[in-house]
Amino acid sequence: MVRTSGHSRQDILTVAETLIDARAYELDSFGHVNHAVHLNYFEQARFEALARCGFTYDELARRGWAIHVVRVEVDYLSEVLLGDRLRIRTWTEGFRRTSTIFLQEARRDPREGEADSTPVARARVVAVWIGKSGRPRRVPEEILEGFGNLEAPET
Amino acid sequence: MVRTSGHSRQDILTVAETLIDARAYELDSFGHVNHAVHLNYFEQARFEALARCGFTYDELARRGWAIHVVRVEVDYLSEVLLGDRLRIRTWTEGFRRTSTIFLQEARRDPREGEADSTPVARARVVAVWIGKSGRPRRVPEEILEGFGNLEAPET
Amino acid sequence: MVRTSGHSRQDILTVAETLIDARAYELDSFGHVNHAVHLNYFEQARFEALARCGFTYDELARRGWAIHVVRVEVDYLSEVLLGDRLRIRTWTEGFRRTSTIFLQEARRDPREGEADSTPVARARVVAVWIGKSGRPRRVPEEILEGFGNLEAPET
Amino acid sequence: MVRTSGHSRQDILTVAETLIDARAYELDSFGHVNHAVHLNYFEQARFEALARCGFTYDELARRGWAIHVVRVEVDYLSEVLLGDRLRIRTWTEGFRRTSTIFLQEARRDPREGEADSTPVARARVVAVWIGKSGRPRRVPEEILEGFGNLEAPET
Repeated sequence: MVRTSGHSRQDILTVAETLIDARAYELDSFGHVNHAVHLNYFEQARFEALARCGFTYDELARRGWAIHVVRVEVDYLSEVLLGDRLRIRTWTEGFRRTSTIFLQEARRDPREGEADSTPVARARVVAVWIGKSGRPRRVPEEILEGFGNLEAPET
Repeated sequence: MVRTSGHSRQDILTVAETLIDARAYELDSFGHVNHAVHLNYFEQARFEALARCGFTYDELARRGWAIHVVRVEVDYLSEVLLGDRLRIRTWTEGFRRTSTIFLQEARRDPREGEADSTPVARARVVAVWIGKSGRPRRVPEEILEGFGNLEAPET
Repeated sequence: MVRTSGHSRQDILTVAETLIDARAYELDSFGHVNHAVHLNYFEQARFEALARCGFTYDELARRGWAIHVVRVEVDYLSEVLLGDRLRIRTWTEGFRRTSTIFLQEARRDPREGEADSTPVARARVVAVWIGKSGRPRRVPEEILEGFGNLEAPET
Repeated sequence: MVRTSGHSRQDILTVAETLIDARAYELDSFGHVNHAVHLNYFEQARFEALARCGFTYDELARRGWAIHVVRVEVDYLSEVLLGDRLRIRTWTEGFRRTSTIFLQEARRDPREGEADSTPVARARVVAVWIGKSGRPRRVPEEILEGFGNLEAPET
């Protein structure tokens, strides 16, 4: 079973969309979601995207593998406040032999009185697959195939 | 508007029930949700319970008030793993002049193959209302009334 | 080697004292260290106390063991702000067959213009030792002996 | 007074160096410091660097200002484990009218048996100064002058 985070099945519009609701303890002393927390959200969305390709976190742990982030680039476009609901889409820019380049966009749903959703952050994340030996290993077939079928979202 | 966290309206069974899904970045190096994270979950659930009484976090911030936790007691009954969905119920043991004693119970939904939900943690939290001056102040009427109408859940 | 956190050897006054400096990202939207973060601090202090008994976190991981917190009680006595330095002392109330009852006290160093340190939080934490099988196991000898030699601090 | 984090004055080799010790609760389920936590460390180091220029976090809060991160780029070069001590150096690439471009490098001290320190992460962070009105404002003079005197570290 693919478990998803904080939402029922019918909420999911595309294969790699994740819903995240900002929680009270994720605010910093400026009263908004801290920029580091967005990396947590994006990580959660990547795990859900991998699970959609049939590669769950449990399976990863069972095999003794890991995924190491080696580079992130994030543009922050708009504040996220308590109660905001985010939709994060995850797709790929491409693959190298042992790494995957993820592209991600977080939009927040309209607040009361707003007509449209607002993009809040965009990320490019390079992650290396680590085998049981602790060394980089080939990107799994499931991932190459699963993500190969994903379309980049129109924005 | 009462904003809720990670769930649609119809999911809510009682006035003070909150849904929380465990996220990947909330696991510790033992692979389960860390015991400190449960305090974050319970805090989120208290903010949602207050919002149900008509007293939102935004309203709290607007008035320059705060709520300081002065004592917690938590019993941890069962591990929470990635993908588990928790339902947290929040009610009150009672009130003192400037403080509220919250009781909370988190249960996780059945995993695949399980028939019933499982209690994972129970908390008793004493919190003091702090006014704009930085001093303790009376518990707001909305809270006294709102929580007065809540029943303790049968367990 | 016993690694310690954020301080040089000569700072350590008793065998189980840990220094913790509050960091910017540990503040919540009320501008003080969130109550859940204190559980993180106390956990860090317990790991350092265990290491002083010759039982490091690395050794724990090497054996495939874990320590599960099953109950916490914390009294919060005073706010902690950015830049405050805490000294956490860790000792034991006693042992059961598979569990250890830790007592902990965090005091913050005097701020500019203050003469004395201030107690900020006190905790009682019951933790169970989990063996490789995932089942509770006897408290290790090193711990029984190491903590047996610790005096409760005079307060 | 410039407060610093987890170290005494004589540890500080350059005006904008910060010591950070990895703590137990900052490990993720892969047993190393999570990539998002490095953003917390870098943020802490920036606040200390600003304080060295005479612009403390308290002063920032007193004026009702904020600093919003609008872009981060981080390269992760080596794992950080429990007990590792990091030294983070912070300097600037330059300034725009309302924003500061910080460059940061984290190195970890040699572990037992190692001869040299190891670079673990490098960051480039673009941050905008926000005035009391909630709008971007000019970079403060103290910062322009303070950072202007910093040399980029030789690496």
